[in-house]
Amino acid sequence: MLSFRDPIHGFIRADALETELINSRPMQRLRFIRQLGWTFLVFPGAEHSRFSHVLGTMHLAGRVYDALAAKSGGLLPAARDCRERRLVRVAALLHDVGHAPYSHSAEDLFEEGIDHEEMTRRLIDTPEVREVFARHGDGLDRREVQQVLAKEARGPRRLLSEIVTSELDVDKMDYLRRDSLYCGVEYGSYDLERLIDTVAPIEDPTNGQWRLGVDHGGVHALEALVMARYYMFTQVYFNVTGKVMELHYAEWLRSQGLRWPADPDAFLQHDDVSVWQTMRRSDNRHARALVHRERFSLAFETGEHLTAGEQRRFGELLPELERRFGADNLLIDHSAKDPHRLTKKRVLVRRYDGSLQPMAEASDFIRHMSRIESYRVYAPEALRREVAGAVRELWGS
Amino acid sequence: MLSFRDPIHGFIRADALETELINSRPMQRLRFIRQLGWTFLVFPGAEHSRFSHVLGTMHLAGRVYDALAAKSGGLLPAARDCRERRLVRVAALLHDVGHAPYSHSAEDLFEEGIDHEEMTRRLIDTPEVREVFARHGDGLDRREVQQVLAKEARGPRRLLSEIVTSELDVDKMDYLRRDSLYCGVEYGSYDLERLIDTVAPIEDPTNGQWRLGVDHGGVHALEALVMARYYMFTQVYFNVTGKVMELHYAEWLRSQGLRWPADPDAFLQHDDVSVWQTMRRSDNRHARALVHRERFSLAFETGEHLTAGEQRRFGELLPELERRFGADNLLIDHSAKDPHRLTKKRVLVRRYDGSLQPMAEASDFIRHMSRIESYRVYAPEALRREVAGAVRELWGS
Amino acid sequence: MLSFRDPIHGFIRADALETELINSRPMQRLRFIRQLGWTFLVFPGAEHSRFSHVLGTMHLAGRVYDALAAKSGGLLPAARDCRERRLVRVAALLHDVGHAPYSHSAEDLFEEGIDHEEMTRRLIDTPEVREVFARHGDGLDRREVQQVLAKEARGPRRLLSEIVTSELDVDKMDYLRRDSLYCGVEYGSYDLERLIDTVAPIEDPTNGQWRLGVDHGGVHALEALVMARYYMFTQVYFNVTGKVMELHYAEWLRSQGLRWPADPDAFLQHDDVSVWQTMRRSDNRHARALVHRERFSLAFETGEHLTAGEQRRFGELLPELERRFGADNLLIDHSAKDPHRLTKKRVLVRRYDGSLQPMAEASDFIRHMSRIESYRVYAPEALRREVAGAVRELWGS
Amino acid sequence: MLSFRDPIHGFIRADALETELINSRPMQRLRFIRQLGWTFLVFPGAEHSRFSHVLGTMHLAGRVYDALAAKSGGLLPAARDCRERRLVRVAALLHDVGHAPYSHSAEDLFEEGIDHEEMTRRLIDTPEVREVFARHGDGLDRREVQQVLAKEARGPRRLLSEIVTSELDVDKMDYLRRDSLYCGVEYGSYDLERLIDTVAPIEDPTNGQWRLGVDHGGVHALEALVMARYYMFTQVYFNVTGKVMELHYAEWLRSQGLRWPADPDAFLQHDDVSVWQTMRRSDNRHARALVHRERFSLAFETGEHLTAGEQRRFGELLPELERRFGADNLLIDHSAKDPHRLTKKRVLVRRYDGSLQPMAEASDFIRHMSRIESYRVYAPEALRREVAGAVRELWGS
Repeated sequence: MLSFRDPIHGFIRADALETELINSRPMQRLRFIRQLGWTFLVFPGAEHSRFSHVLGTMHLAGRVYDALAAKSGGLLPAARDCRERRLVRVAALLHDVGHAPYSHSAEDLFEEGIDHEEMTRRLIDTPEVREVFARHGDGLDRREVQQVLAKEARGPRRLLSEIVTSELDVDKMDYLRRDSLYCGVEYGSYDLERLIDTVAPIEDPTNGQWRLGVDHGGVHALEALVMARYYMFTQVYFNVTGKVMELHYAEWLRSQGLRWPADPDAFLQHDDVSVWQTMRRSDNRHARALVHRERFSLAFETGEHLTAGEQRRFGELLPELERRFGADNLLIDHSAKDPHRLTKKRVLVRRYDGSLQPMAEASDFIRHMSRIESYRVYAPEALRREVAGAVRELWGS
Repeated sequence: MLSFRDPIHGFIRADALETELINSRPMQRLRFIRQLGWTFLVFPGAEHSRFSHVLGTMHLAGRVYDALAAKSGGLLPAARDCRERRLVRVAALLHDVGHAPYSHSAEDLFEEGIDHEEMTRRLIDTPEVREVFARHGDGLDRREVQQVLAKEARGPRRLLSEIVTSELDVDKMDYLRRDSLYCGVEYGSYDLERLIDTVAPIEDPTNGQWRLGVDHGGVHALEALVMARYYMFTQVYFNVTGKVMELHYAEWLRSQGLRWPADPDAFLQHDDVSVWQTMRRSDNRHARALVHRERFSLAFETGEHLTAGEQRRFGELLPELERRFGADNLLIDHSAKDPHRLTKKRVLVRRYDGSLQPMAEASDFIRHMSRIESYRVYAPEALRREVAGAVRELWGS
Repeated sequence: MLSFRDPIHGFIRADALETELINSRPMQRLRFIRQLGWTFLVFPGAEHSRFSHVLGTMHLAGRVYDALAAKSGGLLPAARDCRERRLVRVAALLHDVGHAPYSHSAEDLFEEGIDHEEMTRRLIDTPEVREVFARHGDGLDRREVQQVLAKEARGPRRLLSEIVTSELDVDKMDYLRRDSLYCGVEYGSYDLERLIDTVAPIEDPTNGQWRLGVDHGGVHALEALVMARYYMFTQVYFNVTGKVMELHYAEWLRSQGLRWPADPDAFLQHDDVSVWQTMRRSDNRHARALVHRERFSLAFETGEHLTAGEQRRFGELLPELERRFGADNLLIDHSAKDPHRLTKKRVLVRRYDGSLQPMAEASDFIRHMSRIESYRVYAPEALRREVAGAVRELWGS
Repeated sequence: MLSFRDPIHGFIRADALETELINSRPMQRLRFIRQLGWTFLVFPGAEHSRFSHVLGTMHLAGRVYDALAAKSGGLLPAARDCRERRLVRVAALLHDVGHAPYSHSAEDLFEEGIDHEEMTRRLIDTPEVREVFARHGDGLDRREVQQVLAKEARGPRRLLSEIVTSELDVDKMDYLRRDSLYCGVEYGSYDLERLIDTVAPIEDPTNGQWRLGVDHGGVHALEALVMARYYMFTQVYFNVTGKVMELHYAEWLRSQGLRWPADPDAFLQHDDVSVWQTMRRSDNRHARALVHRERFSLAFETGEHLTAGEQRRFGELLPELERRFGADNLLIDHSAKDPHRLTKKRVLVRRYDGSLQPMAEASDFIRHMSRIESYRVYAPEALRREVAGAVRELWGS
């Protein structure tokens, strides 16, 4: 039974199963995976790891579960030690164990073409984690956790998946707050208490599925969450300097032919520390860019919301740029993100009269938020002006 | 010219010289020295490095300087770009560069018997840092910085040393706030604004030296700073679990015969990352204790304020303990700290009528705070009860 | 020379002139005008007065002035005691003295058809305030303050007016933060430090006027301010329960034939305390509604963004409602607000390449935010259901 | 069923009984009793009323109850709607209804020599409150509430009284936080979460009574609470300017022969608003001092911790002062407060080994904190220097 102090949530407590999971190697490894990858080189406070994030996520999973159970009319049991509550907390706790070093910076480099979700699944299947479940699970099976994470559960249990992964999941709720605090910015603030107060279990009449929705009073709280996320993307996650570091990192990984092992035991050997030690010894230009601060500089950036036509046109000018300056002297960032997926993934709002309305209709903001689509061109400082001139000439701005 | 976001102070700005110093290797290395050593294994949020701490310290040095200059009647110039202000900020920025990996955990292991202050001095003497001063110093010399850090300046300039190192220095002001925030506790809170508002330059009539003191209205603010520090020591810095990790670390270092190089260039190769990578590959029992969470457990602890006699008596029972259980199976922590040094180091209070009074007399609290002196005995979990019984028998509690 | 502690800004200091103005009757009266009128009956924490708001506004005026001066290339002097800086702080301090009891709740009830801005002007012309300027103005004239408030200044001085009244004025900056804190909500949070960091003096090329604008990096910070204001309107200022209390208050004032005196000396006798004492003694139904909590209940509300056609249609069904239930038994709220006026009032953004762009073009959000236009119908609890049914029948929802 | 937003605790919810009590006249009157009396004239933010304080106190009562119940081994039932939990929340909610206008400033002026606790008892006996209990009490009787407030309960129920009134009651927990926030100071901060985490029900072996105590780990958290209270007294509650306003107020009340009615119905007519309106119309010197800011000035103050001998000596010089300047021209403040009553009222600490120790022994700080005993002399500004000289001459400092 552990108890942690947390800068965001105060006390976070873990029961016996959670404690043993926290003490397992896959979880302890997260202490050495920074939540925001290279961002700490731009926002010095952002040195926090995934470890504290997943504790916070587990904590919020319990809180949102309680809020739903209280409104579910018996659909979800309300006891603090009921199976469903334990399940959703454990799923939240484990949801990030498969992340590669420096988090999102190089996630497409797994062997066998797997992704971090699959690695999470495999780590939950390792003998160490299986044994923890066997000894402390008290009836809870690791496969149920995998089902929740894979969104395979049916009926009300589907709500557990929604708590952990959806448009208003506890993952976002935690990381927006946490990343804001550690970065020293306020973009990620939204009304957490109000949001938890207004989430509601709603059965989607179009397909009979149980989904996370909000009461009418929560429309603005959910809007604010979406906005907070949007700002964190534009100001922090897609930061000009942070992005070039990700690009150098990815180039270096590629140049070394590095792949994250698909075997979970081998995978556990890789974290930010092991990678950083290797980069320090590398003579590669991109490793040096990060280790010795010899980064490429921003030569050009487009607007934030390129149309499909503009994107195509930007793609078409790249070969000419590479011809003039050499592909080696250019790093191209393509930052793209939907501010939400509420158009595709319905989140329902329960109005005062009980009728349901998709969030995308209930909120003007949501309807009008544009997808982020932008490009940036980086080059060695010595070439920056020349490259900048060339892009402007070709792009015409 | 850099500008940083900081969770404690908001925006922190650096001028040209500061920017280049921040970009130098000795400063960048601090990104990989955790401010609180192994504490992040107990307080998961405490993953912050010395890097953000020294930025905060520099920022506060400027603020306290401004407060003093405004009250100094011309003793210190008030312009924002005056030499003294630039000097004290740079001294604050550089004051921690000599710290060994994991900060205070193993600071007596320098070659040649030097300490981290001497290493700081040497790093400021490296060609890289000298060149930064030469090119961006705009008249500021690195030797002046060393003088401020060594408290060698005379006259009003001595106040600069006091800002950086004294009983009410900006080092404490920053770390108490910062460590509190990251640990998720509130012990380290005190009234920063009030304290800055009441610090005053005071000439000590007993020796004519300029010292940092406080106006009458600041007595309680300074008390609160002392209290905050006391609580951070008892609750965080001397935490039961944190301490055993320091002991394992020190044992491992000793077992490997490791010494921190006295040569600054060689020293720069050592940080938390390099040490951790080495420990991971070690089969040593104490390395494993940290890497694989096979830590000794607490078997016994004394009270917090042992008398000299009690300390002696505790020391005397150790040989018997070692005889019974083997020195290898025991880790002994001796936590000792003065809550302040205001008895020895006079901080003067200027009363409403202009008369001066030593803080140690002005404050009841200060006078009655006892030195922390306590012992803890740790042993392998398997031996814990037996060791606990033995200590109780010998110590008689 | 006064110094105040403030929950939002820490220390707020006042110079000699400001101190005497603060001690004058028009300013002290603001201690008894609640910042948010009747809102404290809904959000219990919102008991704060205009007095602390104007101190905060003065404080921010100085901060924004400093930020502008630093970027103005000499256009605005940078010294802390320069005339322009003193002027803008004093204008900010005095900008709200003309507010009627319960702030915005009944502002159209001045004698002679004047408004609170005109009353502010008159109060600055009273002998008491004139004498303060004469004795402590140190060259500053009350007429200059009136000019700044009336936006009559030309050239760079126009920037002072912009600091106090514009789309990104210190009034909003303060009240959003302050009202949020006291209400215990987070809707009003935005990145104050970033905003102050990015405001810039910009000469509008279309008319040569100096305006407050933002650097490119401030677009999102300004968006966030606009959003924060929007949320505070929808969630707090236009709160369902708060609105009915304003309606009862207005009805009571009208029933008593009350008018706020146009004579400043007589006006100073009226504040929340004097009005409340009178209401307590009143037998009027609307006074009782507030004093004895016999408020009308919400029977119906429209959507938040009615079209012009819908508004007209809603207006047309009111006579029929009144015919059925009696005008006495209905309170109709019309909440209407532009989320910003950036379409009409240009705020310019200075892009990385120095070119200027109106904020309304630079920001997708801004372009798509819809005007709030909504109606609510309140009725005595006993009639609520019946009225609700009737409105639904007539309105067709 | 009400739900409130609160700046300190986030959401505060009230059940049916609590809602009706909150809507009753005795509770609504607290909206017009400022929590800190005249302090808002010194700390402009401190405009908060007792109303929000009692909501916060009720909220904390539930939280502390839950913490105790979880540790009580069945002594206290753990269900959220159990009788004991409802009882302690309601007692906390009602504990302050008997406060006179401007809170502590004039509490000895009740008719019949009663005090505010007795008035609280009487208000709970009014027909209005009785009816609320009758209709919504669901088995809870108002007399039980009175017993809890009067500390008359026996057995484990005594713990309920301890939660509401003791050395570590929820009253202090709330007001320290709340007053700190609103005043804009940090003196009142302490680790609320840690404190709630460590409170424990302890049976005092000396008399078999159940008391609120703390686990060993809570010693420092309780120390911090005591310190926070001490600082709030020295810096805020005993503030130099705040105190003279209380003295003027008391003088005015006395000069008018005002008494707070002992009849609860008549008492309800008196609040800050009614008193202030009366003072405004008064020509009395002390009323004018408050209304027109014609306050006496501080001429002299003694140290903070006078000995009994010094107190006597100070008392003896007053007649001479009055002879010289006239009693009318002097206001004498005697500020006195025990920083805690832990010496008389045992709070027990449960040590790691299960043994119990009085807090006054467990904590060095607690043992050494001195009682506040100080005097201040105020006089009209015109006489200030002369009075100051006279006191110094007589007192000899």
